[in-house]
Formats: sequence, C-alpha cells, structure tokens
Amino acid sequence: MRHTLSILVENRFGELARIVGLFSARGYNIESLTVAETLDSQVSRVTLVTSGDDHTVEQMVKQLDKQVRVLSVTDLTALDHIELELVLIHVRVGGDERRQVLNLVDMFPARVIDFSENALTIEATGDRLKVKALLDQLTPFGIHEVVRAGTLAIPRLPAAKVRDDLVQSFATI
Amino acid sequence: MRHTLSILVENRFGELARIVGLFSARGYNIESLTVAETLDSQVSRVTLVTSGDDHTVEQMVKQLDKQVRVLSVTDLTALDHIELELVLIHVRVGGDERRQVLNLVDMFPARVIDFSENALTIEATGDRLKVKALLDQLTPFGIHEVVRAGTLAIPRLPAAKVRDDLVQSFATI
Repeated sequence: MRHTLSILVENRFGELARIVGLFSARGYNIESLTVAETLDSQVSRVTLVTSGDDHTVEQMVKQLDKQVRVLSVTDLTALDHIELELVLIHVRVGGDERRQVLNLVDMFPARVIDFSENALTIEATGDRLKVKALLDQLTPFGIHEVVRAGTLAIPRLPAAKVRDDLVQSFATI
Repeated sequence: MRHTLSILVENRFGELARIVGLFSARGYNIESLTVAETLDSQVSRVTLVTSGDDHTVEQMVKQLDKQVRVLSVTDLTALDHIELELVLIHVRVGGDERRQVLNLVDMFPARVIDFSENALTIEATGDRLKVKALLDQLTPFGIHEVVRAGTLAIPRLPAAKVRDDLVQSFATI
C-alpha cells in the first residue's frame, strides 16, 4: 500500500542524507520525495511517498521518530488528507492543434506559462490521477518534456468541501 | 550563488540515497530537492537547489555525471529557465477577514482547496519571491501550517512571453 509521510526535521547539514539512507539501507522504496524549508528556517519538511504493508511502514515511522533531529513523523495515509502534485509539461504543438490543447488546459487546474511558435509549456496541479489524466490527454499532441515535483500532502479541514471546481472539470472530460 | 540542477537518473533502488549522499559527503548544502518519475517509469528526475560558488558547483556536476546510473545533469542556472514552487497554506481565518484572504487569493496564482468555518487551505504556485510575497501577505491573518514542494525548473522556450498574468497580478499588490 502507498503511504505518504510528512516529516519535520531540523534543517541541519546531512539530515536529508540520513533520512533517505534509512530507507535505502532497509530496502524501502521511495516513490517520490520533496523537501523544503518551513516558515521556520531552522526546520524543513520532507514529504515522502513510499509503499509497503502497514506493519513495515509503521516500523519505518518508528525508526524515523528515533532520529535525534527528526521532530515529528506523520503517516497521512491514515488521516483524511489532500494530496497534490505540481507538473510542468512542454508540449510540441502549433497551428490549429494549439486551440485543442488550450481547451484542455481550461478544463484542468492548469495554465500556460510559456510559449513559442511550435510549443507550449503548461503548469498543472492535481492529485496523481488528475495529473495522469492530463498527461494522457496531451500525449497525442507530443510531449517533449515533463518535470514533476514529489507529492505534497496536507490534512483535510473538518467538515470541508473540497475542490468542487475540479470535480466538475473532470466530469466533463 | 544559488544553482538549480536537473538530474535524470535510472529509477533504481538506492540512487536517491547515492545522490544526496554525494552532497552530504562533500559538505554541499541542499536547499530544496524534489524527485519523481518521468514519463518513462524507468527514469526519475531530481530537481535540486544548492548554493556555492560556480567552480564548486561545477565540480559537483562533474561528480554527479560520473555516476553510472545518472543519465544527465543540467545546471539550469546558466540557461534561461522558469522556476516554480507549489505551496499549500493552512490559514486560520473566519468571519469578515475571510473576504480579505479571498481577495488576496484572487490576485495570486492561487486557489482555495479546502475550507472549514474557521480556516482555509490555499494552494499556490509561483517562483520563490512570489510564494514569499503571498506568505508575507497571509501572515497577519494567522498561518497554521505551510507545506511546500522543492523548486521545479524547466528551460524557457525560445522567444517566449512568460506569465504576463503574474507580472500584472503582482504589480497590483
């Protein structure tokens, strides 16, 4: 099963290497990872997607928690949460086909951030399935390059209403 | 100087640990890092921001390039490129102040992805300065949590016109 871990760690030299090394040494796969400072520049947050049975991942969470510089580890999989990815897509497209691509972009939470005569660069956000759907739709036009960030995750607010705009958009595809 | 490296690497177990370990072993700081699969599931792309003088970073690029499983390393700093971050922001806000926050969200490339009676979760994308500007604007309302992804970067298309929408938006703040 896929698990998304949110790890707060002191922003010290070598800490990322230590965390990644823990996974590597134990043979746990890292599907995606992203790390950046929090509002407190002394603390970084690592969002990491791994896969494994619940017991295995639980052991890994315990191992991480034991690290002196690790401030907290949360397995968001067990909580109601939102996952999002950012992806940049360079599509080779010109002429009449450009309109078709722009129509697609309008239906997704996406925008054109760069263009030339024969190409567009598109920025899009969404969960894994939405990003995959957009890539699938763009593939026939000719994707030149895809640059994507590791999954981000945040707990859902209580009694929240979420991304109805997206639900509607995707229903039309 | 800040350098943004784009590294294509075989999607094999332990490769991320090897790359991060190279930086750690040589005392090079990793400011942000994000890794995810490319369209080819056998290949991952690591986008990594480090700082150091040009010579030091050049040496690191050479070291990375020597790794058997590393397919390519590009220092995007030398190229005309676009950098973007994704950030999720949980703001404690209710009542009349909510309208002020929504007005801010309208001016940035941002959207509300979740809400409860006393809080909003906002998704935003932008370069480092734009994200900082948004966080600065939201701070007085009360930021409860910030989850951000490492910087993504993609080369700019030739003769491109870039994000005029953003330039306009930020001019109004």
